[in-house]
Amino acid sequence: MSTLYEHGTLASLMAGNMAGTITLGDLLKHGSRGIGTFDGLDGEVVILDGEVYQAVSSGQVNHITDLTAKMPFASVHEPGDLQPLDLAEVNFASLNGGFVKQHELSNVFAALHLQGTFTHVKVRIAPKQTAPYPSLLEVAKGQPTFTRDNVTGTIIGYYAPEIFGSVTAAGWHLHFISDDRQFAGHLLEFNAPKLSGDLQIFDSLDQHFPITDQAFRQGSVDLATVRDSIAQSEGNNE
Amino acid sequence: MSTLYEHGTLASLMAGNMAGTITLGDLLKHGSRGIGTFDGLDGEVVILDGEVYQAVSSGQVNHITDLTAKMPFASVHEPGDLQPLDLAEVNFASLNGGFVKQHELSNVFAALHLQGTFTHVKVRIAPKQTAPYPSLLEVAKGQPTFTRDNVTGTIIGYYAPEIFGSVTAAGWHLHFISDDRQFAGHLLEFNAPKLSGDLQIFDSLDQHFPITDQAFRQGSVDLATVRDSIAQSEGNNE
Repeated sequence: MSTLYEHGTLASLMAGNMAGTITLGDLLKHGSRGIGTFDGLDGEVVILDGEVYQAVSSGQVNHITDLTAKMPFASVHEPGDLQPLDLAEVNFASLNGGFVKQHELSNVFAALHLQGTFTHVKVRIAPKQTAPYPSLLEVAKGQPTFTRDNVTGTIIGYYAPEIFGSVTAAGWHLHFISDDRQFAGHLLEFNAPKLSGDLQIFDSLDQHFPITDQAFRQGSVDLATVRDSIAQSEGNNE
Repeated sequence: MSTLYEHGTLASLMAGNMAGTITLGDLLKHGSRGIGTFDGLDGEVVILDGEVYQAVSSGQVNHITDLTAKMPFASVHEPGDLQPLDLAEVNFASLNGGFVKQHELSNVFAALHLQGTFTHVKVRIAPKQTAPYPSLLEVAKGQPTFTRDNVTGTIIGYYAPEIFGSVTAAGWHLHFISDDRQFAGHLLEFNAPKLSGDLQIFDSLDQHFPITDQAFRQGSVDLATVRDSIAQSEGNNE
């Protein structure tokens, strides 16, 4: 029995509420593994063993130790109830197909943590925005991508049920970081002959809202637009 | 800072997973006010001060003390951070209009608790189903309704953001119970010249999933059908 903690919603980010609304310090109280982005949609964050790495849009990876840094959207959890995994010929097609079916993930939140050597990895990194913020869809159009072949590293991220698809990214939302901590980002493509790690199925989602943030409270979310935008900007792994 | 606890999802109920998956005892650990339904979609539940009342489809209201009774879908919270309310000429139109705007509820979960004398109340009560369960839409077609004029009682229930509309009932989901505990149900219509009570805005949703339940894990949710069904069966207050 374990909990996934999420701060902020994809719909709000989509609507342009990109200012940070939780400090890194507060976020880390809820888990030592996770993913997210910083104030202004500044990069792609990987949290492993409580250490925080931020890939910025130049491709550089920063080790973040400033606990006052703020994030608009992030998910973390504490590892527990881990189901060990040893997978062969892993890519998004295998994760989306047999893996989801075998582990009966469709209606639950789960964390995936995989390590090994990847023959190919392609990531994208969100570039920092400044207020007045554009829509996430606008940002998604101009995001740089980076590739690396024969790299050893870690995948960390989540599976979310389709009915939560405006709250967070439905299906797999995975980030990658290399063992040398020099290459990271939001995972777009990967191939690995053999990966090992663990799967954690959550019985609870602790969804946290920035209720004192005026932009969040007053923001108007057009659900049809949000769905379209999410499909266009997050649809990356099918 | 307070939390709304929800067990189960509307989408799963909609798909026909109506068997109870949490005991009343476990639910009450998370709050003393709330709403829900029992195993087999058996009636409409009101929880006030930790006391549990179930309106069944004959119109009768039972005081439930069996903590082993199971529920497939329920929401509870502990009162806190209450904003006092004194409202005049209250009905669904006023709650959906000015009230949501004034309190900036669109993007948050909130609890509403109102007491007073109602000139008119109309409720519906879900009739108990047996396995193999029909869809919630089928059940909704045959639900009895009851009306009462000039009745003193309590409204208890929740506001949920539109992006959570397949997870739970979006907008207002309110139940009613009379002070004499003889009349209760899922609120369809009401009019009251003057009501007082409180509003509680949650910064967290603790969404709990019955991950050990095979029907929940293996159930297939067609999102378009779920949205249509929810619109038809829950669309009652606009």
